[in-house]
Amino acid sequence: MKDSKGHQADRRKFLIGMGVAGAAVTLAGPALATTSCKSDVRWDQEHEVVIIGSGFAGLAAAIQAKRLGAKDVVIYDKMPVLGGNSAFNGGLFAVPNSPLQKKEGVTDSPEIMTKDQLKAGRGVADKELLKHVATRAKEALQMTLDAGSEYFPYLQQLGGHSVPRTYQTTVACGAGITQPLIKECRRLGVRLVTRAKFDSLIFDDKGKVAGAKIFEGYYFGRGKEGSAINVRSQRGVLIATGGFARNVGLRSAQDPTLTEEVGSTNLPHATGEALLELFDVGAVPVHMAYIQTGPWASPDEDGFGYVSNYSIYNFAHSISVYPKTGRRFMNEIADRKTRADAELTCRDDDGKPLPPVTITSYEHAKEHPTMKKVLKYGVGWKFDTLEELAAHFNIPLAPLKKQIDEYNGYVKAGVDKQFGKPMKKAKGKYLKAPFVTVRNWPKVHYCQGGAKIDLKARVIDSTTWKPIPGLYAAGEVAGGMHGVSRLGSCSIPDCMVMGMTAAETMMKG
Amino acid sequence: MKDSKGHQADRRKFLIGMGVAGAAVTLAGPALATTSCKSDVRWDQEHEVVIIGSGFAGLAAAIQAKRLGAKDVVIYDKMPVLGGNSAFNGGLFAVPNSPLQKKEGVTDSPEIMTKDQLKAGRGVADKELLKHVATRAKEALQMTLDAGSEYFPYLQQLGGHSVPRTYQTTVACGAGITQPLIKECRRLGVRLVTRAKFDSLIFDDKGKVAGAKIFEGYYFGRGKEGSAINVRSQRGVLIATGGFARNVGLRSAQDPTLTEEVGSTNLPHATGEALLELFDVGAVPVHMAYIQTGPWASPDEDGFGYVSNYSIYNFAHSISVYPKTGRRFMNEIADRKTRADAELTCRDDDGKPLPPVTITSYEHAKEHPTMKKVLKYGVGWKFDTLEELAAHFNIPLAPLKKQIDEYNGYVKAGVDKQFGKPMKKAKGKYLKAPFVTVRNWPKVHYCQGGAKIDLKARVIDSTTWKPIPGLYAAGEVAGGMHGVSRLGSCSIPDCMVMGMTAAETMMKG
Repeated sequence: MKDSKGHQADRRKFLIGMGVAGAAVTLAGPALATTSCKSDVRWDQEHEVVIIGSGFAGLAAAIQAKRLGAKDVVIYDKMPVLGGNSAFNGGLFAVPNSPLQKKEGVTDSPEIMTKDQLKAGRGVADKELLKHVATRAKEALQMTLDAGSEYFPYLQQLGGHSVPRTYQTTVACGAGITQPLIKECRRLGVRLVTRAKFDSLIFDDKGKVAGAKIFEGYYFGRGKEGSAINVRSQRGVLIATGGFARNVGLRSAQDPTLTEEVGSTNLPHATGEALLELFDVGAVPVHMAYIQTGPWASPDEDGFGYVSNYSIYNFAHSISVYPKTGRRFMNEIADRKTRADAELTCRDDDGKPLPPVTITSYEHAKEHPTMKKVLKYGVGWKFDTLEELAAHFNIPLAPLKKQIDEYNGYVKAGVDKQFGKPMKKAKGKYLKAPFVTVRNWPKVHYCQGGAKIDLKARVIDSTTWKPIPGLYAAGEVAGGMHGVSRLGSCSIPDCMVMGMTAAETMMKG
Repeated sequence: MKDSKGHQADRRKFLIGMGVAGAAVTLAGPALATTSCKSDVRWDQEHEVVIIGSGFAGLAAAIQAKRLGAKDVVIYDKMPVLGGNSAFNGGLFAVPNSPLQKKEGVTDSPEIMTKDQLKAGRGVADKELLKHVATRAKEALQMTLDAGSEYFPYLQQLGGHSVPRTYQTTVACGAGITQPLIKECRRLGVRLVTRAKFDSLIFDDKGKVAGAKIFEGYYFGRGKEGSAINVRSQRGVLIATGGFARNVGLRSAQDPTLTEEVGSTNLPHATGEALLELFDVGAVPVHMAYIQTGPWASPDEDGFGYVSNYSIYNFAHSISVYPKTGRRFMNEIADRKTRADAELTCRDDDGKPLPPVTITSYEHAKEHPTMKKVLKYGVGWKFDTLEELAAHFNIPLAPLKKQIDEYNGYVKAGVDKQFGKPMKKAKGKYLKAPFVTVRNWPKVHYCQGGAKIDLKARVIDSTTWKPIPGLYAAGEVAGGMHGVSRLGSCSIPDCMVMGMTAAETMMKG
């Protein structure tokens, strides 16, 4: 308290310390009625490890805490089902030095993966955090395998990755990971509580996070608040609540174009209020303006839909063309921001969106189970001839034919002279009829911004630049790791490794 | 309190409401000793309008409040001198539809200025705020003229501006505005308190800002905290404390390259702790990652120095060349980010900075008073021949000569075929010996990020998306107006107009 910044740090701590006491004066919740000062909080429950959010980060943290000997671990989730937005993601998991890479003869390393990510981060990504995650991604993969996750027996090479290093669950979505992890949590005796909404942190007299106020019986979207309980935590609180892609105010404050009219791949509850609570208690806001839109989404369906996974898989051996010219306009596996920005340039004469058309040979598209889905639900189309395809999308035929011939030359040569796309995954995959097509347009997908954390998943205080004692964050709610653009399939390793890391810090310091 | 978000909004309010009370328990400051609960704050002083910070925004607010009838206005500044970082800026003031534009026959409008700014903002600037400021910039200019500010009798056309619209004080720095405004404040009876550091906000029972805790007798950089007083405000508190260019933690959290080794044009006290307090009480962090580096700074001197103003004036009729090739590498009056990014590409074979050399004809450079300064202080160099210039900077002579010939062709044609630089201000200004040169390299100059405000300068709450009652912000501490890049000379109108606006809202609602 004697250093030059002492009074600032203390101000924040004590301001926070009185939060619950203050609320007690007016809020009518019975749980709070007797909490009249900070040393007098009425604790309704006590647990060893308290985790907020049941996505990849929260589940991995709970399992790791149990493995390290925690007796009493609880996860609170505001929704009626477990798994959060993670359950609905693409189930794509980047892992360097993986068993499948060994099998496929791919040379890779955590350093190479980090290098790819730093490039996408455009100079502002956090190299140490990226390296930490890449180094331990294999362990995280193993945790899912141990829990029973199943993956396709081949790797994918996603946009911005210099080699194939991406696993995908056989159900092609994140539930292929969250469901086994939830089962494992249950087996280990983790207490899983749904409809329990995190409200605020409770600090002790020394400025350490002592617990959290939770509203039980909460119903998302119905305005029912539930009843408040004060949950004491012996080892601290982990915030693993995901991003704010669906908080239109917060995202459009950063980018006025991301209004309600722009779609999102996230579930409606990705609203970020726990992140705002972190800022209230002095967490450093980092990279809030870097909001990623997914270039593989489709304007022809809601949410993440079927086209996203279809496109992620097929882009490597497909071409995307601007309907007006019939020409390619991007490297189809460039990083997400590069592609999203490129797609947004595809417009008609009035400046309105004219979504690009992605063209794949039927014989290659059918290798992935998502093709049947996009055709079944009418968000993708099959054509026996190029003529039919061109006519359907009003693409000029001659330039389109020329484009395909040119591209097949690149497939043959193994070098894309037009946009420098890595052609390893396109080897031998010439474009020829019949074709399957989808349309692509970006959707808000991921928030690189959040609260600053250190390599031990501790939340950093913006005044003292030291960790806020007892407070941890992992996954999308944390910010700064990925920089301007996050590479695809790098969120699952981020969430899981930082969740595991948070548990280790809580258990071992 | 019954809507779906009710308990969140209340949590924040009451958490805040107890801040002072909580501090009282442990902080030993005598001023706080008796403040044991929120309705029992011991107020040491009371004023009608409380303003934190004495830069452009704070001074304009104080004057406007007085003009609107305020009896008792106080400005607190943490430094021993008034004027803040504003006093040391370039004194450049963009005003559309100004008297000088009329005199010079320049067609302009608030809409055209806003359009220029939106382009630099790269799609994420706040159009309504920009338009509000551009529309009232003329009034702000008049306020400075009324107070006695003097400007050069000609306009400049700065980077990114489509027409000449920039005034500059005859002292070529912001003190040419702050000093007259301070004098005017004194004349109007505004109380000006230095070495008074804002610490935190004090809220009343209803969640309205009732005042601020201030440390009197504070010494910047000496670790002396001073003594705390609680200042009550009848009409609210305006935070006008500037940016955080000198907060290395906060800026490097956003951009890891902006470490201690990178210079800044700002004074050392531009550390942003009041902004962090705003985030603590629920303000929306906007665009924190957008930090502007000044492309006109020099690696050969500290701070803003002399070269910055010299370059800002001369770029329009100069060329910048990469020493390794002797070729231009940018439009010398592109927007700041475009130029800073371009300059950062000028490196030697080891990747180390090889700052570009900006070449101006002596006969044009001497028209501006800064030339004498850069030569006098050895941060600029005069050469009688191109040969001497090339030899001094180790630039290959033949390509340099060719570049100058080419450029003189663009001057003649009035069209820059190389980089599309607007040539209006270069008309007739051929490059010829003798030459004056400086070297340029970006320095951290301005933080576009800050707390979100509305058109009435009210700080927006990140949970309720309504204004936080009694809380205002203006100037660089507010964020989101300019987007990715702020155009030069647009900070003074921003600060002054939003300061005036805050005063109007406080006085008239």
